[in-house]
Amino acid sequence: MIITSLDNNKVKDLIKLNMKKYRDLTSNFLVEGEHLVQEAYKSGCLEEIIIEDGYDIDIDCKRIVVTHEILSKISNLDNPPYVIGLCKKKSDNYNLGKRILLLDEIQDPGNLGTIIRSAVAFNIDTIILSENCVDLYNPKVIRATQGMIFHINIFIMNGVDAIKLIKDNNISIYGTDVNNGIDARSLSDEDKQCFALVMGNEGNGVRESIKNLCDKNLYINMNNNVESLNVAIATSILLYELGR
Amino acid sequence: MIITSLDNNKVKDLIKLNMKKYRDLTSNFLVEGEHLVQEAYKSGCLEEIIIEDGYDIDIDCKRIVVTHEILSKISNLDNPPYVIGLCKKKSDNYNLGKRILLLDEIQDPGNLGTIIRSAVAFNIDTIILSENCVDLYNPKVIRATQGMIFHINIFIMNGVDAIKLIKDNNISIYGTDVNNGIDARSLSDEDKQCFALVMGNEGNGVRESIKNLCDKNLYINMNNNVESLNVAIATSILLYELGR
Repeated sequence: MIITSLDNNKVKDLIKLNMKKYRDLTSNFLVEGEHLVQEAYKSGCLEEIIIEDGYDIDIDCKRIVVTHEILSKISNLDNPPYVIGLCKKKSDNYNLGKRILLLDEIQDPGNLGTIIRSAVAFNIDTIILSENCVDLYNPKVIRATQGMIFHINIFIMNGVDAIKLIKDNNISIYGTDVNNGIDARSLSDEDKQCFALVMGNEGNGVRESIKNLCDKNLYINMNNNVESLNVAIATSILLYELGR
Repeated sequence: MIITSLDNNKVKDLIKLNMKKYRDLTSNFLVEGEHLVQEAYKSGCLEEIIIEDGYDIDIDCKRIVVTHEILSKISNLDNPPYVIGLCKKKSDNYNLGKRILLLDEIQDPGNLGTIIRSAVAFNIDTIILSENCVDLYNPKVIRATQGMIFHINIFIMNGVDAIKLIKDNNISIYGTDVNNGIDARSLSDEDKQCFALVMGNEGNGVRESIKNLCDKNLYINMNNNVESLNVAIATSILLYELGR
């Protein structure tokens, strides 16, 4: 059976998942396009496939066949893909591991997604998002992760509580400070074994209250004309440096 | 005198500058917000200021006072700034310097702007854009540069011609290759003195025809689960590495 009406209740519910409120309410989220649907399937969180009539995908999962028009309405993209996946959020796992990234007040979805992609590339075990970050399940975040959202442990926690949890586990905390930091290149091999790197908001950096709790503050050596790097760039360079 | 009508010819011309066609035709472009207007002024390419009635900015330049409504129409932002600058493109300067970044087919304006910001941070002398890159004067590109567009020499040239120019100047060319490259960390101090780094399109990387002309192909050591990094991230990490 093909759903052809935008008034269909299932379709209405799917469209609502583009809003954080409904993602929070249902613990569901959407992923768009074949690559992300495949990644969601492999990670075990794919619940249903919404697929355009006439297309197929080699995945063993309940499927809802819809018209191109309906897919366009559910999709966030100018050029909607032929398939969208309905996924279930994973339950939080508070296991920290040894290599942690704490993100405090990251607001731009593209930045958050790109950072997640880089964190997997440089072998981070766990990402902690402060409660005031952009929603992890925002469609733009998921797209920018390029599927890497399914390859890393991520949970949400109040920033100050997260710092306490990290300190209770005797893990060193590194912040960033352009003026009073130490050059990231001077970190020792031991410094790179077990750490939590804290990165702050696009405009304001790490909050003073959190900066004061850090064991070390780092900076990236660069040209004096440049006040700062984009936060996704700075985070990735520091993770690259910490991965040596 | 305050311009209050959207039918004013000057206002119509300013709005048109949001389209590449009119930027090409006039050699003008817009910058939005106080910070970018200040940077444009310092660089000598600011021609006029379009400012909201009731506001002021400490810059000695011809000014056009307009209503908030008109500023909103000229602006690309959801929250328009109180000031927009009308700028003149600089004439091309084909001086290469010793540290060159060649960008081939970069399509995303956020990526291009972020790369320009990183290139200034890591002391690149010249950026060459291939003709099929997103327009340098696209408002999203300029915003993502955070004003760094005014701190570096950038010109546009056919990609293959650019390679020829670089080779004629006896400058080593580094491409990227995830499979057959050498670890960027293994570059010698001599390798970092004088070079042109070539970075390719978001989806496809550097074209084969250009890859074959490179003296070395580099890769960034990372987790096997990750096929690639975002192009702005990869470029920035390589420039960071080349800056040691």
